[in-house]
Amino acid sequence: MQKTARFDVLGIGNAIVDIIATVPEDFLFEQEITKGSMTLIDQDRAQSLYARFPAATEASGGSAANTIAGVSSYGAKGAYLGKVANDDLGDIFSHDLKAIGVSYSVPRLKDGPQTARCLIAVTPDAQRSMSTFLGASSLFCADDLDADLIRDSQITYMEGYLFDRDAAKQAFVEAAEIARAAGRKTAITLSDLFCVDRHRAAFLHLIKGHIDIVFANETELLSLYQTTSFDQAVAQIRKDSDFAVVTKGESGSMILSGDETVEIEVCPVDQVVDTTGAGDLYAAGVLYGLASGLSLSRCGELGSKAAAEIISHYGARPAISLDSLL
Amino acid sequence: MQKTARFDVLGIGNAIVDIIATVPEDFLFEQEITKGSMTLIDQDRAQSLYARFPAATEASGGSAANTIAGVSSYGAKGAYLGKVANDDLGDIFSHDLKAIGVSYSVPRLKDGPQTARCLIAVTPDAQRSMSTFLGASSLFCADDLDADLIRDSQITYMEGYLFDRDAAKQAFVEAAEIARAAGRKTAITLSDLFCVDRHRAAFLHLIKGHIDIVFANETELLSLYQTTSFDQAVAQIRKDSDFAVVTKGESGSMILSGDETVEIEVCPVDQVVDTTGAGDLYAAGVLYGLASGLSLSRCGELGSKAAAEIISHYGARPAISLDSLL
Repeated sequence: MQKTARFDVLGIGNAIVDIIATVPEDFLFEQEITKGSMTLIDQDRAQSLYARFPAATEASGGSAANTIAGVSSYGAKGAYLGKVANDDLGDIFSHDLKAIGVSYSVPRLKDGPQTARCLIAVTPDAQRSMSTFLGASSLFCADDLDADLIRDSQITYMEGYLFDRDAAKQAFVEAAEIARAAGRKTAITLSDLFCVDRHRAAFLHLIKGHIDIVFANETELLSLYQTTSFDQAVAQIRKDSDFAVVTKGESGSMILSGDETVEIEVCPVDQVVDTTGAGDLYAAGVLYGLASGLSLSRCGELGSKAAAEIISHYGARPAISLDSLL
Repeated sequence: MQKTARFDVLGIGNAIVDIIATVPEDFLFEQEITKGSMTLIDQDRAQSLYARFPAATEASGGSAANTIAGVSSYGAKGAYLGKVANDDLGDIFSHDLKAIGVSYSVPRLKDGPQTARCLIAVTPDAQRSMSTFLGASSLFCADDLDADLIRDSQITYMEGYLFDRDAAKQAFVEAAEIARAAGRKTAITLSDLFCVDRHRAAFLHLIKGHIDIVFANETELLSLYQTTSFDQAVAQIRKDSDFAVVTKGESGSMILSGDETVEIEVCPVDQVVDTTGAGDLYAAGVLYGLASGLSLSRCGELGSKAAAEIISHYGARPAISLDSLL
């Protein structure tokens, strides 16, 4: 990260507004929602599920957008690429990024589907189960990439969820190539167990060839290498990537840098309310730390602190200014 | 309340979605927002204020709608009249009422202004200051009244905020006349100190001639009678109304029924987070109690309990099912 850059971290992802409701455990069963995962749904299903959804609150979301909001909240310069429509939810998404100081100027989609929404069902155990209608966000493609912005960002961070669409996957690869050619770093989060399962070969190809920093949780890593042995999966990712960050829920996380391993503890929380965004905000702390040249253990600590903040309330964007945690 | 009714309480009001953000005290000063009050703003101001607003969350609001949501959450049958546009915020408002069991079927406004929004700035002292763009809700008028619905509701409850528009004020009077002619009860909340100040004569006329149950807080009551003596104001409302409910913030509330006075204590709260909706939910408890034929002290107690629930979190709709408080 030799050259100065206007932005510390650029996020690329699906631009989504979350619709959050608490539900009883039964609701997941009745609505056939896979607990703890992200399921893509079409517009009809989005409407019928919403009609059965309890009264809710709305908040900007989107995995990479949450991460960039966190990076910015820590005080770094963030930018974002992702597509919304010209509607109320698009206004909300755009406002909430800009309000936190993130550079975001992707043109709105006209005459297409609505802004993406994610119906988040939070069960009493604070676990979140997500049903996502991608809408306008699914029309983000290579044409929407801002090459200058990528070149001017220390790290370009992309969410694995983009792999669910071919045009976005292509944009992903192009963005990585632009970043690398400019001497910048690239990062990816594997996003979801089932997303990894759907796109295993493509993920491996990308990690080996285009990505500097890999974020994964335990189940995603096991899925990536189709193994039940965590140690084996860790050994594999170490071979495939020089720098990987593995989160293990309540057991903390580890940063694997070359041969080095840094173990990170979780940050204790009085009450876990909603785990939505835990991984996104953990990544925010680590990316902020890396962009700021902090030690690996400090990077991990800032990740844990941001994750602890986010799971102590509903919604996946910080409720406080994260720089107060520094 | 002799005849059976399909609905316990019908609410009529401005159909609004809240945009809620925490702000430092300075923000109110910089943006010239009157602390603790509701200020009407036009579309231009709504846009420019939103552009300066911090990252926010969205939740359905509207004073009378919050009350009806509370009545319904306690287990009574609620209905609502108020207008939204055919946009995302309209979807959200409509969904959140129906999801909680409230009957709501006012046709959407086509080709007019957007759904109303209220920018709620919550300061660290948990006080809320509201800037409201009425948009589509301001086009609610007498034509939108459903006379059968009014006749089929034990109590028709209307918010004083409606008085800020002549067409809505007229609808208000018409609704009261329909209800009374059907042998039903009418109720009003004075809504806001400055609202009372703007429409004092009209409020007094209505209270004396058309309204059975008056809800007011201390400052609204003082403004109504242009006095600084609370005792004098109480004596006046007793003359003008057979049944009045006066809230006094942390000092509790009192129900004035004829010559009888029932003092109600506040319900203690661990931490006051956001006072938005405190009055609305207090009214919900009292109206639920009245519609269910409970004692006045029990009515007040349920009001205090609902108010305590609502101020312990952000947003003006119950986060739990209020029937768990019964």
